[in-house]
Amino acid sequence: MSRQRPDVGDLVERARGGEPRAVARLVSMVEDASPQLREVMTALAPYAGRAHVVGLTGPPGVGKSTSTNALVGALRARDLRVGVLAVDPSSPFSGGALLGDRIRMSDHALDPGVYIRSMASRGHLGGLAWSTPQAIRVLDAAGCDVVLVETVGVGQSEVEVAGLADTTVVLLAPGAGDGVQAAKAGILEIGDVYVVNKADREGAEQVRRELRTMVGLTARADDWKPPVVLTVAASGQGVDDLVEALQGHRSWLGESGRLAQRRARRARDEVEAIAVAALRSRWEGVGGHADLDRLASGVAAGELDPYTAADRLIG
Amino acid sequence: MSRQRPDVGDLVERARGGEPRAVARLVSMVEDASPQLREVMTALAPYAGRAHVVGLTGPPGVGKSTSTNALVGALRARDLRVGVLAVDPSSPFSGGALLGDRIRMSDHALDPGVYIRSMASRGHLGGLAWSTPQAIRVLDAAGCDVVLVETVGVGQSEVEVAGLADTTVVLLAPGAGDGVQAAKAGILEIGDVYVVNKADREGAEQVRRELRTMVGLTARADDWKPPVVLTVAASGQGVDDLVEALQGHRSWLGESGRLAQRRARRARDEVEAIAVAALRSRWEGVGGHADLDRLASGVAAGELDPYTAADRLIG
Repeated sequence: MSRQRPDVGDLVERARGGEPRAVARLVSMVEDASPQLREVMTALAPYAGRAHVVGLTGPPGVGKSTSTNALVGALRARDLRVGVLAVDPSSPFSGGALLGDRIRMSDHALDPGVYIRSMASRGHLGGLAWSTPQAIRVLDAAGCDVVLVETVGVGQSEVEVAGLADTTVVLLAPGAGDGVQAAKAGILEIGDVYVVNKADREGAEQVRRELRTMVGLTARADDWKPPVVLTVAASGQGVDDLVEALQGHRSWLGESGRLAQRRARRARDEVEAIAVAALRSRWEGVGGHADLDRLASGVAAGELDPYTAADRLIG
Repeated sequence: MSRQRPDVGDLVERARGGEPRAVARLVSMVEDASPQLREVMTALAPYAGRAHVVGLTGPPGVGKSTSTNALVGALRARDLRVGVLAVDPSSPFSGGALLGDRIRMSDHALDPGVYIRSMASRGHLGGLAWSTPQAIRVLDAAGCDVVLVETVGVGQSEVEVAGLADTTVVLLAPGAGDGVQAAKAGILEIGDVYVVNKADREGAEQVRRELRTMVGLTARADDWKPPVVLTVAASGQGVDDLVEALQGHRSWLGESGRLAQRRARRARDEVEAIAVAALRSRWEGVGGHADLDRLASGVAAGELDPYTAADRLIG
């Protein structure tokens, strides 16, 4: 098979049949913004929407990778197929995620019921806001029951993860990311489930108390009460409780009608991101580029205000 | 004067004359996405482009606020007018920056040569990518010689700051944000000047050595060699060296022609952000909203792929 022009229908068929290489190839096409992506998404559309998409976020040092790893194990023990996307929104320049933390995931590297994939934006237009929903759709259509989306590194917007997931898990740990810092990051407003990891360490009980208080004080637009789960991901302690909390939230989403709402909002964000990327590519592409550069020079020189420039760009 | 419809010409005139309340009012109009903003930007355009825009970024705990405060003092001692924008991209939900750290800035609250302003996105379309360049333009046109842009909180994209500034300062400190974490965040690729703050603490020399090595290994698109400055911002030690490093970078930018390049790129980003916000507002506004929602529902239901939906949205 040529590396240049894969047969999309065949690839999608094989991915749906659970062939890991076909799944990997489709995710690469997303990452590389392949020109055939539209064809891929059209082919996948009818098969997506079944997976439970779970986002994991939290400050550095709380054990996100270890927790993801432990979750994969617990979900596999329940015979669920699992996809893992580790996204790194903070490395647009280096063109690739640092994979050190990923090595631990090799616990599951040979399990055919688990797809693990790191993803960077590779600097293409729209970045991860554009590519992550499409990669999720690939794993979803390939038959994953749960797709875990973990953000790697610091500096990313935790809020973006919340926008992509059915259920957002916010991880904290004693001594890493204290209460005030967490509040600053706004992550106490986005969790559907909170985890205090490294719960065998001193201070875990205090983090839980603080979390419960702060979660109680935060007004939510819905009537879900986010649980706080204690785990020691490295030993597996509490991970079953976490799985139950995730499944509890998934059930609530379905029963309350919130799942459809969240997914419609997600689809809206995705359609907008694709539309914006298409327009940017038009503006910055051959022909358009000269226009934008000329307008920008006018603004930089103070000859033109940016609104008028934007009008001319759109018009 | 009515709070509803200020006389823009009068406001701009008073802001240019250095009246703090007029400057504050104009920044508020940016923050609130006032409908008169276009008029404001048109009036300001000819007067902007003189200030040296300096971005400050780094992991939590390195002393960003203290360093900003110390820098303001050192710049004021040189009789320069200073504007400070503390932006908080991580709090779209709460509708306002947490201002605890800002209290220290009250050292300069009564100095008429200093404007200090915290800014949150208040959830409007385009967020801080849209509003920050406009707030910078206000301070610039009001006669600030230096505009310091400091990001508050964790979770923001440090990279965005680099896109807004002439000179980006990356702060580290011993014990806060170790080398590997910093590399992950990609912040070792964006600094024009590096600072090891809290240099009186153990480990400062090691952070400097690591920084020098990593900065040396990082390929830059230009031939600027980022200096590494040791400071103790709380006592003022090393802050004059930092000011000299900033001024050295500013001179190099001018002489090498990079200043014009950076500003043209910045203007390009700004024009794009305004154009995108205008389109989003059209899509999500009365009339457009129904279209986008309908398309999104189709995508969520698997009846439509997101590319086709995006085409219909644009078309």
